[in-house]
Formats: sequence, structure tokens, C-alpha cells
Amino acid sequence: MRIEVLNTGTELLLGGVLNTHLQFLAQALFPLGLRIERQVTVPDGEAIRTALAETFGRAGVVLITGGLGPTTDDITREAVAELLGMELVHDETVMAAIERRFARRNLTMSPRNRRQAQRPAEAIILHNSNGTAPGLYIAERAVGAQVAPHLFLLPGPPRELQPMVTEQVLPILEKLMPVRPAFEMRMVRVAGVGESAVEELIGEQLLSLGLELGYCARPGEVDVRTIGHPHVLAEAERIIVAKLGPHIVSHDQRPLEKVLVDLLTGRGETLAFAESCTGGFLAHRITNVPGASAIFLGGYVTYANAVKTSAVGVDANLIEQHGAVSEPVARAMAEGARHAAKADYALSTTGIAGPDGGTEEKPVGTVFIALARKNGETLVEKHRFPTDRKTFKDLVSLTAFEILRRHL
Amino acid sequence: MRIEVLNTGTELLLGGVLNTHLQFLAQALFPLGLRIERQVTVPDGEAIRTALAETFGRAGVVLITGGLGPTTDDITREAVAELLGMELVHDETVMAAIERRFARRNLTMSPRNRRQAQRPAEAIILHNSNGTAPGLYIAERAVGAQVAPHLFLLPGPPRELQPMVTEQVLPILEKLMPVRPAFEMRMVRVAGVGESAVEELIGEQLLSLGLELGYCARPGEVDVRTIGHPHVLAEAERIIVAKLGPHIVSHDQRPLEKVLVDLLTGRGETLAFAESCTGGFLAHRITNVPGASAIFLGGYVTYANAVKTSAVGVDANLIEQHGAVSEPVARAMAEGARHAAKADYALSTTGIAGPDGGTEEKPVGTVFIALARKNGETLVEKHRFPTDRKTFKDLVSLTAFEILRRHL
Repeated sequence: MRIEVLNTGTELLLGGVLNTHLQFLAQALFPLGLRIERQVTVPDGEAIRTALAETFGRAGVVLITGGLGPTTDDITREAVAELLGMELVHDETVMAAIERRFARRNLTMSPRNRRQAQRPAEAIILHNSNGTAPGLYIAERAVGAQVAPHLFLLPGPPRELQPMVTEQVLPILEKLMPVRPAFEMRMVRVAGVGESAVEELIGEQLLSLGLELGYCARPGEVDVRTIGHPHVLAEAERIIVAKLGPHIVSHDQRPLEKVLVDLLTGRGETLAFAESCTGGFLAHRITNVPGASAIFLGGYVTYANAVKTSAVGVDANLIEQHGAVSEPVARAMAEGARHAAKADYALSTTGIAGPDGGTEEKPVGTVFIALARKNGETLVEKHRFPTDRKTFKDLVSLTAFEILRRHL
Repeated sequence: MRIEVLNTGTELLLGGVLNTHLQFLAQALFPLGLRIERQVTVPDGEAIRTALAETFGRAGVVLITGGLGPTTDDITREAVAELLGMELVHDETVMAAIERRFARRNLTMSPRNRRQAQRPAEAIILHNSNGTAPGLYIAERAVGAQVAPHLFLLPGPPRELQPMVTEQVLPILEKLMPVRPAFEMRMVRVAGVGESAVEELIGEQLLSLGLELGYCARPGEVDVRTIGHPHVLAEAERIIVAKLGPHIVSHDQRPLEKVLVDLLTGRGETLAFAESCTGGFLAHRITNVPGASAIFLGGYVTYANAVKTSAVGVDANLIEQHGAVSEPVARAMAEGARHAAKADYALSTTGIAGPDGGTEEKPVGTVFIALARKNGETLVEKHRFPTDRKTFKDLVSLTAFEILRRHL
């Protein structure tokens, strides 16, 4: 049964809001063996009706987001009712739930919220635990000579839509399409090797197994996605490990920072950072991982040279002599951070993020990354990432984390 | 002229990647008076051709993203050429540029990259300064009985697409649609007041001016979007300032961290952080602003209690007595960071991000934020943000920055 997503909302097409619905819905549906075949965004108003009518006879299920609010530009309910030739009725149960919600928060209900208690006559209510607008489900039916798909009308705000999908929409879809998925998806994350090189190493061999293969490249990383029968995927995994072994970061979509937290937790070891050009991004990424406090002791964002000296004890003469962006300073930062935080390992970064500050000898994008280890050895790598400020931070943090991972 | 966006990529419909193209393109086009009327996502393969054929006769311009890579699932070039009945030719200039790119990085070119030098015969090359795949522009033309829209084929990675759009696509669109926009868009960013409260304060009065009004709420912030004739927008601005004055962060979409860097630069003052629960996110946000080094001296990510003591001198007894998440510790962290970095101001955060670590007295989401100032005064605020880890960091950093902004 073909599944489509229809996102409504002028704000999406003006760029005021990032549309995260497709990603959430795709990830929620895949474990049921379901895929989204097409996603469309239209502005509020007449375009909703046009786009929805196009799905008749083509799609089996359409998930519609947005346009269920209390204001006059929220017309999804009306558009659907009209297209299906169904009356809009006032639902007393919904009205009571909305009134309770306002009362609980000591807020006065606006007369506009009455609109949210309307539903196409044969729609089934999907309860909204995080907002006033209920979702609606209308089963497949003939409309004139065509077949209208199963329609799910869902609220626009992600924190209202997401629990509604998980708790109420997925169970309905499972009943509609009860076949268990024969296919599984695997994702292997690879660092430090380009997309075309990855395909050259594994592409033909994997495709000859008869699976579905895809690549997704981000700065410094490539995800290799395989979809197929589990026994074929196991064979594919063996090929990927044989060809890409040391470059493999994870087999389960864990980001690199989570891999590090898991590895260090298992070893009972600890970590610290001294960051200059990454400006706290290493620490931010590591502390995004729940449970990071078991291994991460602290970070020193030594942006000013004086703080490099006062916080992690870098000799001011060293900075004077070699410059802040240099091999000896990176080394001293890592060793100083390890010492100051009493950690087993410390990573340091010092570089020129740009857009300004480059010189002929050290152009924008130059960076030194050091790893100080508890055996007393420190290694320093020099890289150059001439790019924008954000990508620079991405690449430097990824490279630093990879250096640590390979030395654990 | 109707503009549509066609995003291609199986990974988008599997949820592996978040689609940020629509937001970027919408924001890039609006200043030219252009709006996107529809956005469609389809998987790699045959669906690209179907979706593109549907735009013939309907759209004037279609911006197509993705499918220009070197791998076998990248078929946008082929699909477009076939649909237009145009030959694919090998472009020597593009080939040379790709070869130079590999040589510059000391990488070996894969034979697969040769595919990226192919273009439909009448396509114009859009140079890619951040990747191997050039973009392509094919002007509007008759295809059989229909009119094919102006087509722009753009690479999927945002860092390749974005400069290409800004530098090469927009100038072409300006020539195609040279009418200057009569309408402008303004965005006022507001912090510390909810979306419905914002609407209640200004909604009716603004709508009575006859402009287009929209709200976009993020955790802790609301953007108020107005579209209309410049003189109406000026009147709207006066109303917004009168009603929301102290809550206004910026009138020009500058994020709060940029507002702080600008304010402190103007005053010649400096800043430091001591972060526990935000784990480096304050420092990361500030150092995302080019020129932050003029005002930001350093940050201390004092995750472990011992590092709170060693890095910013928090008395271990204070932590013992009140707990790390407490008013006195927040105060000592801010004052200690200000002292250690020799900064004019220091912000500190200490709280319980969750998902674990909460107690009855200090449940998950509890946070203390302190601001130490050069006049010797320190203020501490207690907040509670019971939410996910990522939103918690967003809200705490926003609140901390707002506390500083209001005291400058």
C-alpha cells in the first residue's frame, strides 16, 4: 500500500520553520516494513485540496500534517470534508477535552478554539495529549469513480504529532498492513574515506548480493545503507568489515561521540578537552550523550592566549615563539588539560576557523589536533580544512574523535 | 512565474537525513519577491522522472536537489536529459575541474567521478566550489506539446548547494523575473514570552493594518513575521516595540549570540563561561559567531565536581553542603570563571539535564544560571525545563544569554 505525506503550512514554504515531519515519520514507519513513497509541502489554502485530490487513486495512505489550529488559515478539516463529500459535525467529547485543557492551565478559552471540535462526520478522533487540536483518521472509501486513501490528519507542532503517531497512528497502520517486514535496514558509518572511494571498495560486490544499497555523505563521514533479507545483510556486513575495517565507526547508527562514551565507559577511563578553534564543540557533542558524565571530566575552552596559560598551563613563551596555532601549543594544551582534569586522555584543538586570521604560512583552515594519553605519549596531527566556520568545527571535532577512537 | 522544489534522495524518505533545502531556498528567494509554491520529495530512480514530468506546464522554475553524485544511484542528470530528449555529453572543462580538485587534495580520482562531467547537451554549468558535482541550468523549452520549466540541478550536500544558489542561481532568477518586490518581510525575534501571549498582545492590531502575519515558535523564542508594503511594516514595527519592547531580541534575524557579540564588542567588554549542564554549548554558540574572539576569553566545562574546584575555584565544601546543582555553586562558578579568565562578565550553568539524576527536591530539568558582573554583583536565577536533553540545552543557553543581554 503506497504511503504519502502531505505537509501543509505557508511558514514551511517561507523558510520560517524547518520541516522535521518527514524524517520522524519515515523513521517511525520503517520498522513496520513501511516506506514513504512521496512527500509534498503546500501552503495553507486551496493548494491543500489540489494536492490531496492528486493522491486519490494513487496512494493507499496519506499522512497530512498541519492546518488543524484554531485560526482561519487552518482549513485542513474543511478541505478534507469537502473533498470526501462529508459533513462537518461538532464533537462534544472533543469540545469537553479542549475546555478541560484550558481550565487546567487557568487560561480563558477563545471562541476560535470551538473550530477545533469540528470533525468530518465519519472521522475517528486521535487524542492529542500535548495540544488542543485532535488528530483525525478517516478510512479508505469510494468518492465518485475514485478511491480516497486512508487519511490521517495530524497537528503541525512536532511535540503534538510525534506521540500521536507512535501511540495511535502506528497501531492503525499495523492493522491495515499486517505483513511483517521481510527486509531489514543496516547502516554502517565510516570516517576518513570519501564516498566514491567507499563505493569503489564495496559497491559491486554488495550489489551482486541483490540488496538495496545507498550512500549518504556528510563532512568527513559516509553512511553505507543496506536493505535486504537478514542473511544477505549479514554477508554484506562481512564484506564491508573486510574492505573498510579500520574506517568503520559504528554498525548501528551510533554517532562517533556515543561510540567514544561507550568505549571509555567499558574501560573505566576518563576524558578531558582543551579547545581553541572548536570553541566548546567537542564538549557539547560529548555531553549530548546521556551518561557522558561517567567518562567526561571537563573541558577548557581556551580561546584567549592568556587562558591557554592560566587554565591548562601552556607556557606563554611557547605561544610567543611558535604561535597559538602550532604543534607545540597543541601538544601542551592536551597534556595540560589531561593534567588539570586528572583525566586518562585529553584531546586538544588549535586552528584558524576563519573567515579571517589566516596567514601565508598558516592559511584559514589550518588546525593542529593533539591526543595526550595516560601512558605519557602525546601525538599531534596537522590538518587543513578550508571551509566555512560550521563545517570546520564539524570536521575538526570528527577528526579529533576519530584519533581517540583509533587509539583506544 | 510559479517556482517548485523537487528534492530527490531515498535517504530523505527513509529518515536518514533531515531535508534542510526547502528552508534555505525559501529564505534565499524571498528577498527577490519570489515564493516556492510546492515542494516534493521522491526517492532515487524512476520517481524522479514522474515527479519532474508533472511540473511541465504547471511550473515556471523547478529547483532539483540531489542525485548528481558519482555513485550509481545518482541519476538526476540522466532522468532530466531523457525527459527533455537531450543528449548527455562529456564536458572537458568540468572534467578538468574535477581532476584539479582531486590533485589539490592529493587524492586519487575514481573512474566513477567521470560521470560527474556529463551534462545534458544544452545545459549551462554552475561551478561547485565545495565539491566535485557541478550544478546545471537548462532554460525553459518546448518538449512535444508541453513547456518544460527552467530547470536548476543542484548538488545534495547543503555546503555545496548553498553557495551555488547564492552566487549563481539567484542572479539567473533575477534576470528571469526582474520585477522588484513591492512587499517586504520583517522578522522580530522575541524571547521569554509564549506564542499565544505574543499573539494576544499584538495579533489583532497588526492584522487590522492589512499585512500578512505569521508566528514561528521555538523553545524559548518566537519569531513574529510580517509581510507587506514597507510603510505598513514600519507601523507594525512601532506596535510590536510598544507591546513587546523588553522581550525583543533582534529586528533583523540576528541570533541572540550574535546580538551579544555585537553589544560587547561595542562596549569593549569581555565574557567567560563556567558550564556544567550545558556542557560547552554556551561556548559553542558564542564561537559560532565570526569575530567572537574579540569578546570571548574562555570557557570552563566543569562537568566533574573536582574540575569545578580545580578550574574555577568552587569550594569543595560548598558542593558537599548544597550539592552541585544549587544557588551557591552557580554563584561561585560564575564568579570563579570571571576571576580565572579575567573577564568583565561570566555566565554559569548547573542543572540536571536528564534523563537520569533527578531527585524529589531537584527534579530533572532544574537549573541554576548565574551572571557575575564587573561591578562585583552576581545574580542567580532558578528555572525548570523538564524536557529532552537537546531542548534543555537550547532553553538554558537561551535563558543565560537573555539574562546577560538584559543586564548590558
